[in-house]
Amino acid sequence: MTPALLQSVRDAVGEVRSAAPLVQCVTNSVVVNFTANALLAIGAAPAMVDIPEESGVFAAVADAVLINLGTPNAEQRAASVEAVAAARAGGTPWVLDPVAVGVLPVRTALAHRLLDERPSIVRGNPSEILALAGAGAGGRGVDSADGVDDALEGALSLARSTGAVIAVSGAVDLLTDGERVVRIANGDPLLTRITGGGCALGAVLAAFAGAHPDRFEASVAAVAAYTVAAELAARGADGPGSFAVGFLDALASLDGATVAERIVLS
Amino acid sequence: MTPALLQSVRDAVGEVRSAAPLVQCVTNSVVVNFTANALLAIGAAPAMVDIPEESGVFAAVADAVLINLGTPNAEQRAASVEAVAAARAGGTPWVLDPVAVGVLPVRTALAHRLLDERPSIVRGNPSEILALAGAGAGGRGVDSADGVDDALEGALSLARSTGAVIAVSGAVDLLTDGERVVRIANGDPLLTRITGGGCALGAVLAAFAGAHPDRFEASVAAVAAYTVAAELAARGADGPGSFAVGFLDALASLDGATVAERIVLS
Amino acid sequence: MTPALLQSVRDAVGEVRSAAPLVQCVTNSVVVNFTANALLAIGAAPAMVDIPEESGVFAAVADAVLINLGTPNAEQRAASVEAVAAARAGGTPWVLDPVAVGVLPVRTALAHRLLDERPSIVRGNPSEILALAGAGAGGRGVDSADGVDDALEGALSLARSTGAVIAVSGAVDLLTDGERVVRIANGDPLLTRITGGGCALGAVLAAFAGAHPDRFEASVAAVAAYTVAAELAARGADGPGSFAVGFLDALASLDGATVAERIVLS
Repeated sequence: MTPALLQSVRDAVGEVRSAAPLVQCVTNSVVVNFTANALLAIGAAPAMVDIPEESGVFAAVADAVLINLGTPNAEQRAASVEAVAAARAGGTPWVLDPVAVGVLPVRTALAHRLLDERPSIVRGNPSEILALAGAGAGGRGVDSADGVDDALEGALSLARSTGAVIAVSGAVDLLTDGERVVRIANGDPLLTRITGGGCALGAVLAAFAGAHPDRFEASVAAVAAYTVAAELAARGADGPGSFAVGFLDALASLDGATVAERIVLS
Repeated sequence: MTPALLQSVRDAVGEVRSAAPLVQCVTNSVVVNFTANALLAIGAAPAMVDIPEESGVFAAVADAVLINLGTPNAEQRAASVEAVAAARAGGTPWVLDPVAVGVLPVRTALAHRLLDERPSIVRGNPSEILALAGAGAGGRGVDSADGVDDALEGALSLARSTGAVIAVSGAVDLLTDGERVVRIANGDPLLTRITGGGCALGAVLAAFAGAHPDRFEASVAAVAAYTVAAELAARGADGPGSFAVGFLDALASLDGATVAERIVLS
Repeated sequence: MTPALLQSVRDAVGEVRSAAPLVQCVTNSVVVNFTANALLAIGAAPAMVDIPEESGVFAAVADAVLINLGTPNAEQRAASVEAVAAARAGGTPWVLDPVAVGVLPVRTALAHRLLDERPSIVRGNPSEILALAGAGAGGRGVDSADGVDDALEGALSLARSTGAVIAVSGAVDLLTDGERVVRIANGDPLLTRITGGGCALGAVLAAFAGAHPDRFEASVAAVAAYTVAAELAARGADGPGSFAVGFLDALASLDGATVAERIVLS
């Protein structure tokens, strides 16, 4: 990691807190509460506007948009298309989180359609990234049968074909813009023992992209902040219930210096 | 605050616990879990019946109804109209929480339609109340760009035109029935750092209205109880995660004497 | 309880953890987050796939399916029918949780239709079981006006007519396959003070049925594990908020020996 990239990690947390970016989420019913709370904790302003005739209106004023395909009912699908069109038209960064893509037909069709609209960032587990890249069969829900480096070639090719930063989530997180590759080895296994551990990261990626113009730097900072908060929370946790609570507390008190100090590259 | 009003605050918490009012909520996906838990904690019985052909049936037997427009999908919109018609027909108190009204077209149209059905209580932030009163442009989601006293004239006029008690949420809460005005200065900023801090208050207002016949007294008691619980929870919190947990604990152990003792008028 | 049944209780917790059954849930918006977290805590892999054209595809690969009728919007109703057809075709165990059946028309019609598809397990409160058995008028939401033994005859008759194990939830839990009857007296009243206390048990029943082939043994083990975890969590709780957190922690650290030691039959 270059010194400039490390400096941007240090700065970006404060930028999110001072900008309080308005992050519109079209996300799944399972994690919507945790996602909103994670955004509030990191200093962003969440707005879960996810119905047709409103999502485009809102995306036009939002600072960033998250489209998560976890429970894509018909209204959310239409709202996603609307929101993405407005985000693209306004040059607003937007994140695609293609939950369980490759396995399930409705969301897979939608994910490919949305991919054509040039997301700023795509976040997924290795199986999901491989499925989007046309190189795998997809996962079984939010689990992933593949390791993060199994998805490296797929992530590079997806980054190049779409122009997006690809954030592959795993025990080590891998980020690439098609040229640079960064691997971050922070985090805690407890993040995989609560629902929304990955999905809320998608929203936090949007928040950082809404506050920090360079998308690769924003993505690296978001993943670092998120996984460092998980480490801090894990120290005081008795299990997944108390971990989720402590994670929101840790996100809320996090500062950029702590993130930059604790970041572990691999 | 008159001694009679203070006595009603003292009494109403116990009345909620002994009556265990059945509170039907048509509310948004983000806060529905926290709202149900807040209702259980204060002693009410929540029922999130929010689909057409059921919501009217249920509203006819509920003790109070909450309509929150946070994520108003098509079925919820139809269910809201049904529930409100049944509540009005049965003389059942109902609360309107017009989340983000004024900004977004679908919910704004619905809010105005519902307003004609004479809600018992309207709860919102200053921007939302001003938007409903026809005096403002609305907020950006649940945030509010206006202070609570900026909404005083709008709240008074809305109370007079609709017959509802208006509860304006902010650092100080303002309540009016169009004649009386009460300002309550309890609460904690952490309430704004968790999602549902305002939305669950709408449900608690419904619970108090379902247990205590005088709507203005019920509204004052609900806001006082809710914000005092927030203060008690904030004392032991390390951040928004632990605050949300402690808030439910505090609501569950709250008694009317504590609320009456701690209430701060301004 | 026979020694063989007690041994299966002891074994089943470990079987869930080693098999990590993929449990598909079509469940209500109120409890979907808590349910997913409870499944993760006990060692299962939750997947909330609940839209048409996907739910049948997923049920064909899931290890177990839960259908909970708490907020049955139109897409969930279609998805339920699809998922149940696929589960039945594949011999996959599935659980029906008929929330508020008997009171509300849409879900009552669906519950009866689904009952014809031979669920493996039906979980409900006494009023719901009586309503399904044709012997009662149903409850008011998730509350129950009837005691668990008031539902004994209804549960026996429902078990015999459908072939399902019937799990009746209350201060004492009653389970029957139409021949055997087991009553488990573990648990804590705090389970009724949080939303999803019953609904998440439906999902945990599915998880155990997905890991342990004998459905009656699986059901007894699931109820015992769930209610023992509630007891352990209640010891450290200051109220319903901290109880919910501690409950997930307790589920995550539970082992079969503890469950078998602490189980109280009545």
